This record gives sequence, C-alpha cells and structure tokens, in this order.
Amino acid sequence: MEEFSVHILGCGSANPMQKHRPASQVLSTRGKLFMVDCGEGTQTRLARQGLGIGRLGHIFLSHEHGDHCFGLPGLVNTMGLLGRTAQLHIHAPQSLEPFVSFVTSHLCHEAGYEIVFHSLDPREYTLIYEDRRLEAWSLPLRHGVPCCGYLFREKLGARHIRREMIDAFGIPVCHINGIKEGADWTLPDGTVIPNKRLTTDPTPPRSWAYVSDTSFEPRLSEWLEGVDLLFHEATFSAQDELRAKQTCHSTSTQAATIAKRAGVRKLCIGHYSSRLKDEQELLREAQEVFPNTVLADEGLRLSIGED
Amino acid sequence: MEEFSVHILGCGSANPMQKHRPASQVLSTRGKLFMVDCGEGTQTRLARQGLGIGRLGHIFLSHEHGDHCFGLPGLVNTMGLLGRTAQLHIHAPQSLEPFVSFVTSHLCHEAGYEIVFHSLDPREYTLIYEDRRLEAWSLPLRHGVPCCGYLFREKLGARHIRREMIDAFGIPVCHINGIKEGADWTLPDGTVIPNKRLTTDPTPPRSWAYVSDTSFEPRLSEWLEGVDLLFHEATFSAQDELRAKQTCHSTSTQAATIAKRAGVRKLCIGHYSSRLKDEQELLREAQEVFPNTVLADEGLRLSIGED
Repeated sequence: MEEFSVHILGCGSANPMQKHRPASQVLSTRGKLFMVDCGEGTQTRLARQGLGIGRLGHIFLSHEHGDHCFGLPGLVNTMGLLGRTAQLHIHAPQSLEPFVSFVTSHLCHEAGYEIVFHSLDPREYTLIYEDRRLEAWSLPLRHGVPCCGYLFREKLGARHIRREMIDAFGIPVCHINGIKEGADWTLPDGTVIPNKRLTTDPTPPRSWAYVSDTSFEPRLSEWLEGVDLLFHEATFSAQDELRAKQTCHSTSTQAATIAKRAGVRKLCIGHYSSRLKDEQELLREAQEVFPNTVLADEGLRLSIGED
Repeated sequence: MEEFSVHILGCGSANPMQKHRPASQVLSTRGKLFMVDCGEGTQTRLARQGLGIGRLGHIFLSHEHGDHCFGLPGLVNTMGLLGRTAQLHIHAPQSLEPFVSFVTSHLCHEAGYEIVFHSLDPREYTLIYEDRRLEAWSLPLRHGVPCCGYLFREKLGARHIRREMIDAFGIPVCHINGIKEGADWTLPDGTVIPNKRLTTDPTPPRSWAYVSDTSFEPRLSEWLEGVDLLFHEATFSAQDELRAKQTCHSTSTQAATIAKRAGVRKLCIGHYSSRLKDEQELLREAQEVFPNTVLADEGLRLSIGED
C-alpha cells in the first residue's frame, strides 16, 4: 500500500519552550510532501526527519501567529539556495498575504523559482486543492484571527482487478481500465459478467485532519466524520477550560469530544501550553472520552493504513 | 572581575545543516546581553544557554542574508508574549530597515514595547553605540551586500584605590572619587602624595570583535589591533580560496592572517560551509598562522579576563 503518513515536526505553542518546537506537520504520500504550518526552525526538523525538501510542493498555513509561520522565510530561502526551480504553492487565509508577499519580494527575491499564493476564505468548509489522488479542504476554526484547519483526503481509487478472472475470460489489456472503472464484460455468446466478479473494492481512501488553533468548534464533528487521523490542538488541560476559552484554544477533553462525535479512528493531541507540567494528564483526560488518543511529539510519525 | 563573555548560539552558514545552526552570538557583561546576528532558531538557543531574554536590549545585525536575521521575528514576538515593556534597539545597515520595519509593523504589531531601529553606514569604521562602560564600533566588511562586523570594547574604568594607602593618609571618603580619577593628595604639611602611590592601574578594557560575512579585508587588522577575542568567519578551507573569493567569504588561513596582523589575543573561527567534512582541517590551517585559535561551536562560551 502506498505511504500515507503524518510527521510531527513541532507541537508546542506560542511561548517557546525547551521541550517542544512551534507548529508544523507534514503529510508524506506518493512521493510528495504536504506541509501544514511552518513555525520557526521547521526546515531543520524537516531535514532531521529525513524528509527531502525537494518533495515539498505545497504549504498550508492555518493563521498568522508567529508560532505557525515564522519558519517560512528560512524554508523558502533554503529552497532557493538548493537550486529549486519548481513552483512552491502556499495556501492560507488572505490575512497571510502581506507576510508571504514580503517573504517573496523582499527576503527571498533572489530565489530562482516561483511562489504561488493561494488565498482562501477561512470561514468556509470548502475544497481548496486537488490532484489526481488527493484533495484538501479548509476547516473554519475559532481563534480570534482568521484561522482554518485542513482536511486531506485520498480520492477513491480504481477497483482492483481480479487477475485470475481477467485471465479466465480472456479480457484484452485494452479493456482493463474500463473494468477498473466498473464496466461489466460481455462474452461472445452475449453473457454479461458483472463487474463485481471481475474486481474487488478499491482501497478505502485515507484521511488526515489538522485542527489548530481553535476554541471548541462543534461543527468540526460533522466535517470530520470518519477521518482516519485527527490532530486536534489541546493547549490546556480540562481544568483550564476557562483559560482555553479566553485564549481561543481547546482543552484535551474538548479535542476528544470532537474526535468521539466525528467517529474518527485515531486522535493525536498537541500544541501544548508552556505552562503544562505533565502531558500525560492531557492524555488521560482525552482517553476518558476517546480512548484511541496519542500525544504528539517531535519526530513522531503516524502512518495510516499500515496498522 | 565583572563578566565579559561571548556565547556562540550558531556558527553555521547559509545552507542549513544538522550539525550547526545559523549565525548568532551574544556578549554577556554587567548583567546585559548584546546580540550580534539572529539566525533562525536563535531564541531557542538563547534559552538553552540560560541567557535570559529580558537582559537583551540591543541586537546588532551584520547584513540582510537570512542565516543572519531570520530569527528576529520569533525573538521579537516572544519578547512581546513575555510582557516586555523596555525598548529593544536594533542596529543594522540601512538595507535591513524594510525587514525590521515589517517585523515591527506587521508581524509583531501587538507587542507592548517599542523597537528602535538604528541605521548605520556599513562603509564606515565608526562608533555606533556607547553606554557608561561599553562602546560598539562598526567594521566595514566585503560581502556583496551592505555588511558590517562589530567591535565591542570596554571603556577604560577608574583607577583602583589602594585601601591601605588611603587609610594611612586618612583621606576622607568624599575625595575617593577624585583619587580614582587620578588626583594627587596633599598632606596638611604641603607634601604632595602622587596618585601612583594611592592607586593601581585600572583593569585593562576588554574587547570582542565579530567579523562575518566577508572576503579577505586587510583593513581589519588595523581596526582590530590588540583585541582580546576575534571571531572571524572561516567558511572555507585554504584550498577553497577561489571559491571563498567568488562567494565573498574567507578561508581559515585568511582569518588567521587578520588575527596575526592585528595581534589579537585569541581567534575563534566559524560560519562553516555545509560542504565542509572536517572542521579540524580549518583549525590546523588557522593554527599554522595563528596558534591561539579555537573552533566555534553551539554552546561554546568564551570568557575574557578569567583566563
């Protein structure tokens, strides 16, 4: 099965700390990397996890706070130094445009490749990117400034050929693609062989959602129904619910509640407050609501479809 | 003796590498920190070396290349998050003004403290900062873009009182400052006691120079005469002299030549090329010309006056 794995590059929050780095995660699939958020130092951690910077073509930024985007100048600059020629696409709320524009036109104007900025409306749950195998959706979040999460979902692939049936009926190669798309097969005597005898179901599409930063947003459970892996911020423990609300963040229990209501397969929590003494406390709280929860950590790789 | 120590926070060069971080060094003296250059991730390494961000009031930037200044947004932002109210002074060539201005007005506009930008002419060797005990000079460098190094020098302090002589001659406290400044003392019978019998010489002023990035600049040896500690970039080994010239950098031998001609006490080399396989090679080359050379490394602290 093709790789579909998420790498945690940074899972701290705004106040820097020794233990965690600012936000960044990367989806690695079919030889490509899709980055969400790019806090300071992201390029170093990308290299440390052996993720080739040349495979990165799309960066999605959630919002304008520094711990989510201050690594962009260095990353963009390094791509230029390494001789990149391919376009780099940056997807973000319109409020990020001045920053990205300054990076492009002032800080890295000598880079020999083009940076394409794709503005999106963070108030809408909508398709913002697609290629042959993958699509990305924006997820409206509640964070004081324009902010959105992202949902990445594989497209439903073709049906799988049952080689022995193809051979048995002597179906020519030129018809295989049609069979994969669901076509039946008619024998010379007029007998129709239904597609279900010739193929098996396609691999279930895999999905990953990134939700940071936000206060409790009940609508997420609808948009995230059945996703395989949900990263949801859990800046505070449940006892700091008021503080979470005041600072437009979530508690571990709230993150788990979204995961439970959406019926996701796995929840990963992070974006830890620098005040937090023990992350295990967050984990325990979350697992009371949603048992299949893990703690984010720098270097963690969560692979979907291999387990 | 008061502290006068230099901390290496980053000593890599433009192409990021696993081993070294981008440029930043800090002078710690009399409770204050003076930072030169601020590559990406500087704030994290400042904290890691136990250098309190609140003690930092002045940042000196050498030039506009990202590996020397892309840590500024994060550092400035964090100061705001930590509730800073004191002014932050940034000294740099005029070419850095748009960057600093963008950081101040767009990226960190909610910071509750003032950032004061001090533009300087990087073509001049001139005094750019002074307080009661310290002065800083700009050092014109050759690097393709406007670029300067910095020389920090303690001011000559007062002469030291010889307590036993003061007691012996019964000199009142109200005259001590005058004696420290060099005044003689006249006894009731008219006998003049020369200041040299009452005091000893002041502590020799200590000095640190930061030279990065530059191709070989012979004029430095004049400006840097007798400094205690010289950091001079040595991006390449001597065998890459042509490449050093082409990229406006120096070799280890060139750095050591400056140190030797200037008669400095100690040389520290760094700003290592990512192509470099063995830093010891740079060290051997430099020591052939100037034996008292050390290799920069993240976490290294060079204290002047304690050895």
